[in-house]
Amino acid sequence: MTHPIIHDLENRYTSKKYDPSKKVSQEDLAVLLEALRLSASSINSQPWKFIVIESDAAKQRMHDSFANMHQFNQPHIKACSHVILFANKLSYTRDDYDVVLSKAVADKRITEEQKEAAFASFKFVELNCDENGEHKAWTKPQAYLALGNALHTLARLNIDSTTMEGIDPELLSEIFADELKGYECHVALAIGYHHPSEDYNASLPKSRKAFEDVITIL
Amino acid sequence: MTHPIIHDLENRYTSKKYDPSKKVSQEDLAVLLEALRLSASSINSQPWKFIVIESDAAKQRMHDSFANMHQFNQPHIKACSHVILFANKLSYTRDDYDVVLSKAVADKRITEEQKEAAFASFKFVELNCDENGEHKAWTKPQAYLALGNALHTLARLNIDSTTMEGIDPELLSEIFADELKGYECHVALAIGYHHPSEDYNASLPKSRKAFEDVITIL
Repeated sequence: MTHPIIHDLENRYTSKKYDPSKKVSQEDLAVLLEALRLSASSINSQPWKFIVIESDAAKQRMHDSFANMHQFNQPHIKACSHVILFANKLSYTRDDYDVVLSKAVADKRITEEQKEAAFASFKFVELNCDENGEHKAWTKPQAYLALGNALHTLARLNIDSTTMEGIDPELLSEIFADELKGYECHVALAIGYHHPSEDYNASLPKSRKAFEDVITIL
Repeated sequence: MTHPIIHDLENRYTSKKYDPSKKVSQEDLAVLLEALRLSASSINSQPWKFIVIESDAAKQRMHDSFANMHQFNQPHIKACSHVILFANKLSYTRDDYDVVLSKAVADKRITEEQKEAAFASFKFVELNCDENGEHKAWTKPQAYLALGNALHTLARLNIDSTTMEGIDPELLSEIFADELKGYECHVALAIGYHHPSEDYNASLPKSRKAFEDVITIL
């Protein structure tokens, strides 16, 4: 199938080694971060934080987060251009949704008078409350929706990436205690440009299950 | 910010009413479904099924799934062009991953001899096993990653959509028992073209939290 969308999605892949000499431009980074900010989410809850690891000091902290596990991902941290932590809120409160609805008033999407009625959507949060009074089973998928949007955006920008579930959520919560307060992080995304000769995945063919194994048309 | 990616993401929105006279072309549907098939997932597990509701008979079944709740979404079913159920596997087994790795052999991504070593990635499945021996807390986010990819794809194709968590997973599992066996469905996506005058959301400004509320650069 020849189509620009399919071309982009066939050409993106999970980079296994980065060229440390190449950085994502501030212009492209700005497009990626705005795309993340524009991501859709249930009831426009936006129950997430995207923490961009850019400075050497922040990269050292991220590097150190592999002390106990998943060391196979550690080399990406200093070699890639940036790492983005996809964090999802542990407990989503009315105050959290008030921030969303107040911004909707400021953006002239609803009036101040309509705000109370707009809280009706908050019932989705209540429907997705676990036995500990938390909502992470609901907020975590929203963060992955943003991740799907980010991967498509990166494909269009011809920026390489590595999605990493091989991270240490507990140690990350300690090392980035201030930034992750009230959040958890189960997936991080390294971005940059692959090593010209040592990224073994760059030349391997992409593989996906057959159409009929994943898609049913009724 | 003027950029084709940002233009696409600023212009997509959640449609609240469809024009029943307009259908998504088979060509565009094929691009969307191939984009879904190409979605990334942890260890390329592809722990999902995308069930496309196209025929009147299938739409009647989907229409009936709102008998007990979320009737506000019911009108979309017969008015939109298609509905796609995003289903995620309840329990992900070695046999499931064997399908992935056998396809990787067929696609010449790995050799038959490398297959056993490739099973090492299956440890991620074992790390994400719940107390009931299921993996839905791990497979559900992967389905939302595909959903994020689908929303970006639809934005590029100028096809309207409505992401619906307002569905009835239990009744869907009964009504689509054969199709959803071993899976659960927590989110469905209506696609089509918005009603020219009665989609109140079409003209409302988009609203998202401020940059500094969701993005931290370290």
